[in-house]
This record gives sequence, structure tokens and C-alpha cells, in this order.
Amino acid sequence: MADLQTLKIVFQPEGRTVYVLPETTIIEAAAQAEIILETPCGGKGHCGKCRVKIASGCPKPTEHDTKVFAADELAAGWRLACQTKLQKNAVIEVPQDVRFFGQKILVDGIARKVDLDPSFRKIAVRVPQATLDDQTCDLDRVRQVLKAALPKPVVGLPFIRTLPFVLGTGDQCTLLLKNDELAAVEKDDTTSVCYGVAVDIGTTSVVGTLMDLTAGTEIATASRMNPQVSRGDDVISRLTHITENAGGLSELHGLIVGCINDIIAELCETAEIAGDDIYEVCTVGNTTMNHIFLNVDPRGIGQSPFAAVVREGVNITAAEMGIRINRAGNVYASPNIAGFVGGDTVGVILATGMMHGSGVRLAIDIGTNGELVLAAQDRVVSCSTAAGPAFEGARIRQGMRAAQGAIDKVIFNDSVEVTTIGNAPARGICGTGLIDSVAEMVRTGIVDYTGRILDPAEFDAPDFLKQRIVSRDGSNGFVLVPADKAYGNRAVSLTQRDVREVQLAKGAIRAGIEILLKEMGLSSGDIDEVYLAGAFGNFIRRSMAKRLGLLPGIASEKIKFVGNAAGTGAKMLLAARKFREEAEIISRNVRYVELGGRPDFQEQFMMSMLFDAE
Amino acid sequence: MADLQTLKIVFQPEGRTVYVLPETTIIEAAAQAEIILETPCGGKGHCGKCRVKIASGCPKPTEHDTKVFAADELAAGWRLACQTKLQKNAVIEVPQDVRFFGQKILVDGIARKVDLDPSFRKIAVRVPQATLDDQTCDLDRVRQVLKAALPKPVVGLPFIRTLPFVLGTGDQCTLLLKNDELAAVEKDDTTSVCYGVAVDIGTTSVVGTLMDLTAGTEIATASRMNPQVSRGDDVISRLTHITENAGGLSELHGLIVGCINDIIAELCETAEIAGDDIYEVCTVGNTTMNHIFLNVDPRGIGQSPFAAVVREGVNITAAEMGIRINRAGNVYASPNIAGFVGGDTVGVILATGMMHGSGVRLAIDIGTNGELVLAAQDRVVSCSTAAGPAFEGARIRQGMRAAQGAIDKVIFNDSVEVTTIGNAPARGICGTGLIDSVAEMVRTGIVDYTGRILDPAEFDAPDFLKQRIVSRDGSNGFVLVPADKAYGNRAVSLTQRDVREVQLAKGAIRAGIEILLKEMGLSSGDIDEVYLAGAFGNFIRRSMAKRLGLLPGIASEKIKFVGNAAGTGAKMLLAARKFREEAEIISRNVRYVELGGRPDFQEQFMMSMLFDAE
Repeated sequence: MADLQTLKIVFQPEGRTVYVLPETTIIEAAAQAEIILETPCGGKGHCGKCRVKIASGCPKPTEHDTKVFAADELAAGWRLACQTKLQKNAVIEVPQDVRFFGQKILVDGIARKVDLDPSFRKIAVRVPQATLDDQTCDLDRVRQVLKAALPKPVVGLPFIRTLPFVLGTGDQCTLLLKNDELAAVEKDDTTSVCYGVAVDIGTTSVVGTLMDLTAGTEIATASRMNPQVSRGDDVISRLTHITENAGGLSELHGLIVGCINDIIAELCETAEIAGDDIYEVCTVGNTTMNHIFLNVDPRGIGQSPFAAVVREGVNITAAEMGIRINRAGNVYASPNIAGFVGGDTVGVILATGMMHGSGVRLAIDIGTNGELVLAAQDRVVSCSTAAGPAFEGARIRQGMRAAQGAIDKVIFNDSVEVTTIGNAPARGICGTGLIDSVAEMVRTGIVDYTGRILDPAEFDAPDFLKQRIVSRDGSNGFVLVPADKAYGNRAVSLTQRDVREVQLAKGAIRAGIEILLKEMGLSSGDIDEVYLAGAFGNFIRRSMAKRLGLLPGIASEKIKFVGNAAGTGAKMLLAARKFREEAEIISRNVRYVELGGRPDFQEQFMMSMLFDAE
Repeated sequence: MADLQTLKIVFQPEGRTVYVLPETTIIEAAAQAEIILETPCGGKGHCGKCRVKIASGCPKPTEHDTKVFAADELAAGWRLACQTKLQKNAVIEVPQDVRFFGQKILVDGIARKVDLDPSFRKIAVRVPQATLDDQTCDLDRVRQVLKAALPKPVVGLPFIRTLPFVLGTGDQCTLLLKNDELAAVEKDDTTSVCYGVAVDIGTTSVVGTLMDLTAGTEIATASRMNPQVSRGDDVISRLTHITENAGGLSELHGLIVGCINDIIAELCETAEIAGDDIYEVCTVGNTTMNHIFLNVDPRGIGQSPFAAVVREGVNITAAEMGIRINRAGNVYASPNIAGFVGGDTVGVILATGMMHGSGVRLAIDIGTNGELVLAAQDRVVSCSTAAGPAFEGARIRQGMRAAQGAIDKVIFNDSVEVTTIGNAPARGICGTGLIDSVAEMVRTGIVDYTGRILDPAEFDAPDFLKQRIVSRDGSNGFVLVPADKAYGNRAVSLTQRDVREVQLAKGAIRAGIEILLKEMGLSSGDIDEVYLAGAFGNFIRRSMAKRLGLLPGIASEKIKFVGNAAGTGAKMLLAARKFREEAEIISRNVRYVELGGRPDFQEQFMMSMLFDAE
């Protein structure tokens, strides 16, 4: 009953530490450390791009390594991150040029070129002073010096108001352009200072990334739990809160604005910049999160016919939104697709480039909700399944988010082996641990195809497994970590009900996939690529997801982890305006399939809840 | 020493009463009662347009009347207002169709056709509700019903926020369009309710006119003294106040916004409408008034090189300006020409149509400042003279504004005959009375060509005049109304210094005219038309202005009173968007001539201060 051996992997120069199971690839371990590597070839070992230097704990070179590296490089510890599986504790240096930020935003395996072209740009100028012979007004003199760069700027009163305080001196100043608008004028040459923040507003957590818009580089990230969680765990309970409480909308709106301001403050502190140095905030979020953030009543989403108020992207001044960045700053909230497929999914489609290219591609974004997108032959369909909460720990007796002490990996070999986040004593179980556990229980016959945890007498298995089955209140449970090894001497177990929750969640996602395939006249065998997105999707083990039946039987190499693709989409929207146009096209053209009330979905759902016999 | 006989003229159906001298034309008396008549022929009796019906006190028909009216019409009291001179108290009915408001805005003698086309318009629609088969979001459903009227509306967040509260019902609603923007949605059919307010922000007084933008008609007017007067009488003293007091700009800005809100409140009360029924406020004002209203620092205007911050027209939401109209409402402040020729002059040029047509045309707008515009052969030049304050009563010992008890007309016949406003006991003297008095003193030799009030022994005149000359502190004065006939037993007199102030003012205006003519290579004989604008200009007697030398020797029929042409311009800007385009063209193309520092202006000014010998 020894706990599974875990490896301590330290990434340099950050010094970021993660704990992983043996045989984990470096690229997966790096992703867990939130370091995403460029892999133009899709992690197949062909392109030789994902070079890292292993300072200690270096495994032997693979066949691919020997093709890519010279002998002295191999001796120095250079390896391909996509091919190298970790066997010992290791210290790994990740060069800057193989990382995913920069001009090229890369989503594990799917590279989309980003030509930096943000909404805001700056031009340093010297505006000639008026004379008695040329009494041209301040604004027209600014226009004259700007003529070459922007012949017909749009001008608003706030800009005009600042002019006399800056122009009077005749010294150099900097014009801030917001698209075709003269947004502000600043003293001196401030062209090197222009930041933006991309925000992924999840139902559960909110992640902000500070980007330097003059270079297209990522500077810092910060995240917070969405404070709206105190008013309901999921979208439906938030909508209920708004329906049942006068002022509920402004309350939730205020909470998310405050949360984003907190994140911005932290980013400023980390990067040692001022809030005034930030000019734009781009957000993605599901349609309800988007509506609440914009202070637009989302109640229509919660009741039939589930229509949103606004689909398209919305711009609003930061000042009006109460977002604490530069007073000339802008907030852009991404477009949505439908009431239950929002801007986060638009972000996933953007980041994966699903609207372009060929082949049949399926994206699965599992956050608090599970959104699915299927693209084939210039058609894209999407749907939403209420699948996420179980995987985020909700409704699971000892479920918890992916935090310190959460069981995140489980393997039944000669014993029940588990790893926990931070290598801490087990306190509960998070989504990946849940999938692992149930998948292993199905594999070893502890759980039958209907999802029932059998009595020890009902099936054939080693004793160390049978001993873990406990009976309570008329149904069985399974002990993952016994009390004496667990935090606070409280055993971590799965109940029959927990298994049922997993069945409901995986059944919903799988049924959604089948319905989308049916809508396109395709079957799972036609799928060329699967993109697994979301903080959770990122850490699922492909084999486990397939064994569970969450994914159809697809070759593992076709399944790609694209990380927080929604967040990547937000960064792309921030970095280049053409992606806002693309987002509008996505928003208008991705067809939403309403699963609710479809008899074929109900039938598929019932079938998908079952587990396949191996 | 009998006071001059005055006639009481009542205009119907308003019942508005004015007091005028005998021989005043009906059209002039009507203007005094703020009733402006249409006179497409320029008041020459040709067009027969200005028909009024004189109920009592009807004079004999003129030659023009007999050509225009049938015998029974003449018997019923119909006369042409432009030709008929009043000899008795009279009651006059002015039909609605000869008045200057309505679709056609008419400025005494100069008709400019206004095709109603305001920034805001309304469309009543019924937006289909979403269904499970068509989950189109609220905003896109609005777009669909609007498609024919406006294919690609601009949409802002405030509009989106109101949508769910109105659309939910599925009942009829009204879309408010602001140019190409969807500005608001209102419950029910509110298309009959759409008002605007045109505001003339004078340095001394502020006048607002409520217009029904669905019909193009004027509904009510209201005026207030500009409360900034407490911080300085004229533009220069306001600029000084701002320079010398931190917070001076916001203070003055707050005062004018408050004043306009007061005017709007009064207009609403008079017209029995709500502030929410008003969607736009259009303002004209001189460049300093414009800057202060917009809260833009105007100090540059007050110091060499006298450059403004902004020339063009500015739009800003009413909410941002703190103007209390509909929350979706807009404020449009007209463009300026230069630091000392502002939006009010743009309004005069708009109202007179000076940019169009042929001939040499001169406009003189005398408010607190005196702005001049000269148009000839597709060229237009302008200048500003600090001429107004004297004519508004400032710096004149017993000067006062044109209010109750102000001497407004003076004739020396067999006695010193004066009329006062409201026929009340004389309290002081206003601009027109001042011009009359000085002109009569020059004509009768009391004042010599240098401007000195002579001793009785120095010239030849009837005793009733010589008796009015009084000596005080080493210089002479002239009693207009002796103490026993005046209000509070305080005689109303002109001092030597008062005459000097008139000389400075008329010298400045006249010199400005000569410099503009010189700039164009013209002389006064080339002038085809003179437009006298401004509350004051409207009531000047042409003969007196010429005798004083304020105007060059031009045939009286070439001189036209165009009333508050700046205010008319504001109404035009409110009524039709094409005038905003025209205003921009005016603003960019009218050349400003800076008089300050020009030696030829100084010389001309010295000469123009002298009075011509008759």
C-alpha cells in the first residue's frame, strides 16, 4: 500500500516546482508548471523545436534526440521536451525562445501566427506652437503632425481637454491612438510604455495576463477565485441569484469588476508598472459571465428560449466600467455564440484556428461547463453540456478544486498509487484524480458497466483492491487514501453517488459529441483531431478519458492538450485587431445546437452514461 | 419738454405688447415682440408674403398694399407688415404661416430652407420574441426589424443594457436613432415625442429655444443672464478669472451648465414636457464661452498668439456633460473660427447664408463683443473687435441692459423725446438709446467731431437742448431725462466719458469693417448688403448707426436686421444635420484677420473714432 512514487521537477530560470508521476513527458510537466513550449510539429519529435537542457536527473537520449542534437549537446543534457519521459527528480532549463509567448502565440501543438497589431499604439511627436501669423488651434496643429500616420483621426472631448496642459510646453509629447481615435496625449516620449491585460473570466476562477503591447510578450499572470462563487457555484445558480434578488445583477457585476481590479493591481505590482501604463483589457468568458461583467441583465439565458441579450463583442471605456487602468483605456469583451456557448468558446476556436484548415476537428473545453465545438468542411457546430461541476469538485463528497492536497493522479498497479498537488497529504480529490479513479475502478472491475460499485464478492480482483471497498448506508464506497495517510486523519474515498456524478458528467459530454457528429453526418471514426482545453482538460490523461468513455475511441496521438485556450484567445484578441474581426465571424457563423429537449440527446445521454466493458 | 409719444402695439394671438415710436414699421415692432416674419423679398413690398391683419388702429393702405390685397381684404385690415408704418395704438393679428419658425427658418429678409433632419429620430417597431428554434439574441432581433431603415447601426453598451427590460414584453416599442447609432429603446410608441433645445450662450445672456424635432417647430423660449457675469463682464475678464483662480475653469463651467439646466427646466415647464423628452442640445457661443462650456482650458485664447484649443464642433453625451435631458441625449457645441470669432459667428454665417449667393455682404454681430464677417467672390474674412460692452451698458455711467425702464430710443425734435422699455419711468440707458443719443448730439452740434460735449456758448442750438447741458468735475454732460420725470427722481444723463466709450466702440467696429474691406481689396461702396445681428443690432436705427459713423455710408435699404442670427444658427444646427457639415466648412474656410498689432488697424481706429461733420 505504498503511495505512488512522484518526481520533483524544477523548471529554470523560474525555479517553479511540480510533482509528477514517472513516465510523464517534460512537455506535460512544463504545462503543469504553466510553462507552455512551442511544438510546431504537434509534439511528434520531428521539428526539434522544444529543446530543453536538463541540469540534473537527465534520462538517456531518445532516438529523436540523437537525430536532432550533436554528441556534445546530448552530453550537456539537451533533450526534446516532447519525447523525453521523466524517470527521476530533475532540474530543467527552458530557454526563452522555445516558450509559447511572444509574437507567436502558440497553443500546444497548434501555432497561430500573431502579427502584433493592438488597438492602442503610440507616436512620439513635437507639435509646433502657434504664432501670431499662424493661430491654428491646438487640435488642428496635432492633426497636422499626425497627418501621415492617421489622416482623419476621430477626436473626443476628453482628448481635447488634456491638450492645453501638454501642448503648451512645445516639448516632445506622445499621442495615444485607439484604432482611428486620438485617445490621449502624454508628456515626453512614452512610446515604450503600452500594456494590456487579457482576462479569462471563468465561472470559478479568473485569470489575468499582463502583456507588453509594444513587444507582444507576456509579462506576468495573476489569478483569483471568481468572487461570485459565494453567490452560486455555477451559471444557473448565478442566474437564480439575480432572479431572486433585487440588485443581484449589480452585486455580481461589482464583484467581478472588483476581482479584475485586484488582478490588475497584482499584475502592476509584479511587473513594477503603474495602472496608467495599461491601456486595454480584453475579456473572454461564458455568455452569462460576459453579460454580468457588462452589467447586462442575463436572466433571459436562464429560461426558455435561453436567448442572450447581446452576441457581438462590446467596447466600453475603462472609466465607464470602473476598471482601473489608464483613463483613456478601453475594455473589450469578446463576442458570444449563444446563451450557453460564450466568448470563452470563441477564444478556444480562435486559439485552435478551428475555423481554418481542413479535417474534422473536435474541441472540448471543460471548465465549470463543458462546451463542445466540431468543425468540418467549412461548417462549425457547437453545444454546451452542464458537465463541469463534478470535475471541479462540486457535488463530489470529497471533491475539491485542483489545490494543495488534491489527489490528481491515481493508478492501480500493485497498490493504489496516488499523487497529490504539491505532494501534500491528501485532503480530497480533484477532476483528474476523479477521472483516474473511476477509470481504474472500471478497468479493474470494481465498478460494472452500469456504474455500480460491486461488493468484493461479486468480482475478481487482487485483495489490495477488494480491501478498499467499504459499505456504508446501503451502498459501497472506495478508499483512495486511508485515514492514517491522509490530511487530518480523514480518509479520502469515493462514494457510489460520486461515481454517478461522474457518469452524468461524462455521459453529457460524450452525448454532446455524438449529437454534434450526427448534426454533421459524421461518426467518431471521422475525427482527425481532438483539442482538450481548459485548466482541467489540460491535465486529463488521454487513456483514462477514453477508458471512461468521456472521449470516443480515438488514437491518442490525435488528442491534443491546448491548455487554457480560452485565455489564449483573450491574449490574441488583445494582441491583434484582426482576431476581433475573426471572433465576430466565429460568433456569427458557428451554429449552436440546443441539446435541451431533443429526444435523441436524451437517448444518447442514457447510453453514454454506461461504461464500456474493456 | 413732453416725452415722445409712444404707441402701444399688441400682437395676437399671443397678446404680446410692445411700445414703439410712430412711423415704426409693423415688421420692426413685431421683431421687438420677438415675432419674426417671413420676408423673402427682403422687406421691399414685392413678394406680398408678410400679411398681417390689423384689428384696430389700422393705417391707410400703401401703394404696395393696393397691389397685393383685394378691396375686401383691405377693408378687413390686411396690410403688408414690411411697408406699413404705425401711427396709432394698434392690435395686429399675425397668422402662423407668415412666421419665421417651422420647416423654413427665416432670418428677417434672408430665407434659408430647412429640410428637417435632426440627429435623433424614432422608429416604432415590434420585435419578435426568441423561440427555442430561433434563439437569436435580443440585439440581433432588433437589428433584423431595423434592417430596412438602418442596415448597420452602431451599438453601445448603454443601449444593450436597456434591451432586456423593454424587449421582454414583446409589445410595441420605439427605437431611438442618433445618426447611425441605436441610442435607446423605449416602451410603447413614443415617436411623437422628440424635442431639442438650441442654446445661444452669450457672454452676457443665455437664450434657449425648445424645438419639436418631429415637426421642426419652435415651442418655447427661455433666457437667463449668464451667471458667469459675476466673475467678469466680458471674455477677457473671464479668462483672467480662470488664470488667477485655481479651479476657476470648473467653476465657470459649472455655472453655465447649471444655467442651461435651469433654462431647460423652464422650457419643460412651459411646454409641459419632461426632460426625458429632450434628446439633443445644440449650442453656439463665442470661442471662450464654447471652451468653458466644454470644460476645455481657454487660457490660450487670452494671451498671444491667441490660439484656441479646438476649432471644430464637438459632440458629447448629455450625461457626461451633466445636461439634464434624456440619458441617451447628446450635446453638440458648434465649431469656432478662431480664438475671437466663435460658434456664434458661425451661426450668423449659417443663418444669413453668407457662404452662398453672390455680391459683397457684411455681417455685424454686436453682442458683448463685436464680430464682423465680410463675404465676396467665394472668399470670407472675419475679425473681432472689443466693441460690445458699451452697447450693453458696461462702462457707461448710467448704462443698463435692455430691461424695464431703459431708454431705448431718443429723438431731438422740439424737445428731447425718449421712449423706455415697457414704457416705464427711465432708470438708465441701453445700447440703442446710447447710439440714438450720441447720434442726435452729433447732429445738433452738442458733440463736435472730436467727441467733445461743447459748452452751450460754443455752438448754435435751441434753448431746450442747451438747457440740458450740465457741467460737472471739469467736463460736460447731457441730461436725457430730468430727475422729476425719472425713476427714483434720479436724472438720466450722458457724461463726456460715456461719449468717449461710444467713440471707442464705434471706432473699433468701423475700423474693423474698413480693414476687412481692405483685405478683400474693396471699399464701402462695393457693399451690396449689410446684416445687423445680435439682440442689440436688431433694434439699432439704421439712420442713427450711419450718422454715428458705426456703419459706412450705405443706402438704408441695403441694411437688414437679422435678429439673433447666432441663435437662429443654433436652431438650424439642431434641425438639420447638413448645417453641421456646413458649419464645419465655415469654420475651416472663413479666414480670421487678427487686428491686434496691425499698424493699419491702429491708424484706422484713431480715424474711425472721430464723428463726421454732417
